[in-house]
Amino acid sequence: MIYIGERINTGFKDIKQAVLDKNPAPLQDWAKKQTEAGANYLDVNLGAVSGKPEDMIWMIEQVQAVTEVPISIDTNKLAILKEAIKACKKPPLLNSTTCSKEKLDPFIEIASAYGASMIGLAMDESGSPKEVEKRVECAGMIAAAWMEAGQPMERLFLDPIVMPLKFMQEQAKLFLEAARQFQQLSDPPPNISCGLSNIASKATEKKLINRTFMVMAIASGVNAVILDVLDVDLVNAIKTGDLLMNREIYADAYLQKS
Amino acid sequence: MIYIGERINTGFKDIKQAVLDKNPAPLQDWAKKQTEAGANYLDVNLGAVSGKPEDMIWMIEQVQAVTEVPISIDTNKLAILKEAIKACKKPPLLNSTTCSKEKLDPFIEIASAYGASMIGLAMDESGSPKEVEKRVECAGMIAAAWMEAGQPMERLFLDPIVMPLKFMQEQAKLFLEAARQFQQLSDPPPNISCGLSNIASKATEKKLINRTFMVMAIASGVNAVILDVLDVDLVNAIKTGDLLMNREIYADAYLQKS
Repeated sequence: MIYIGERINTGFKDIKQAVLDKNPAPLQDWAKKQTEAGANYLDVNLGAVSGKPEDMIWMIEQVQAVTEVPISIDTNKLAILKEAIKACKKPPLLNSTTCSKEKLDPFIEIASAYGASMIGLAMDESGSPKEVEKRVECAGMIAAAWMEAGQPMERLFLDPIVMPLKFMQEQAKLFLEAARQFQQLSDPPPNISCGLSNIASKATEKKLINRTFMVMAIASGVNAVILDVLDVDLVNAIKTGDLLMNREIYADAYLQKS
Repeated sequence: MIYIGERINTGFKDIKQAVLDKNPAPLQDWAKKQTEAGANYLDVNLGAVSGKPEDMIWMIEQVQAVTEVPISIDTNKLAILKEAIKACKKPPLLNSTTCSKEKLDPFIEIASAYGASMIGLAMDESGSPKEVEKRVECAGMIAAAWMEAGQPMERLFLDPIVMPLKFMQEQAKLFLEAARQFQQLSDPPPNISCGLSNIASKATEKKLINRTFMVMAIASGVNAVILDVLDVDLVNAIKTGDLLMNREIYADAYLQKS
């Protein structure tokens, strides 16, 4: 599993305040904690706090001062992405583009120039498709453009789009079916990622719903996730799911392996 | 989900001793506890303690004295089954036959005569197949014979055979693939059941492995399980899995629904 730590995001009050105050401590604290918990990327999201690339760069620099873990640049704004990527010490993950050509093409150009990885959402700028077919069509467009640019599938992540169980109960099943079909898009297959927490939006039993859905997603081919990497029960469920899918070798102490 | 409570089995020491002593208390205690926990069937297994039908009948009678929940007659011995089923107050579940004709035909005859349900294991008398194709072939033979006997699919349970993760790590994935294919055998599809605890045999983290595998099984179409119905974390994972597959309607208090 590829773990993308979600916590350095101005959607969280402590991070928002830290960015406003230019106070590195909260960012660095979460960077260290998520690194220790095994994150493979640290997502950095400036959100609506500011439209200035230099604020995103400031966030990235604070994080990189305390960890070697590469950055997931969480923005759909090209102007921010173009500047922020220059501050990354390691090839980052671009999070994320849609399949709309006017966004997809420049994202792929930037990813190619920097050897970066990229998340492509299975949607266009008009919104999230409800049907499996539309998702596969969008994902196929992204994969085709990526291959045409000569980029390896190992650096492409396709996201079938998680929708809230509470409000769109039929969508969880369709996500799983879409993920299964994404695996057939290329050989080797692309990575398949998801933004997990959306599944339990406004629901009770958030953590139980998160980890139950995540296990189903693993069985459908998902191998990357934006998550609360400090949720030990979730990470243990993922480790067990990876064993059951024969992606990791069983050992009695498998939960202790990072 | 159809819950089949596993606990009244002489594989457990307290039950074995109770049968030897003809002491109803342990059987009735577990019958009540499993009923309260929401079991839809109570599995009753005499095991190797005795080959006498009257001992199985004694067990069934003790259970039926304290609960209305129907019995799952857990024996592959025809002589025991033929007598034990006469003691059942409600149509039981026959657990289980293989696809071998010499066993399958009399099991179907008995199920037809009593309006009983039946679990068919996707194996023949030579043992458990390791490949998906063989499992589907066995399951298909069982489903075909069942239909030819004019029995409704609602009373047929097909079991793709769970094997231990620790010793046959590649088998979990093949179970899931087989379950997915079993759903295509008929319309309406048969029930798909599993004996859950085998997945974690000799492994550490038994409960975590049980519930993680179970969630994957649900996503692959499993809708019946022989389980420790008193394992609250397991039952909560199953309830959440059923929600995610849109089999139950979401409600904030969904865990409280039985």
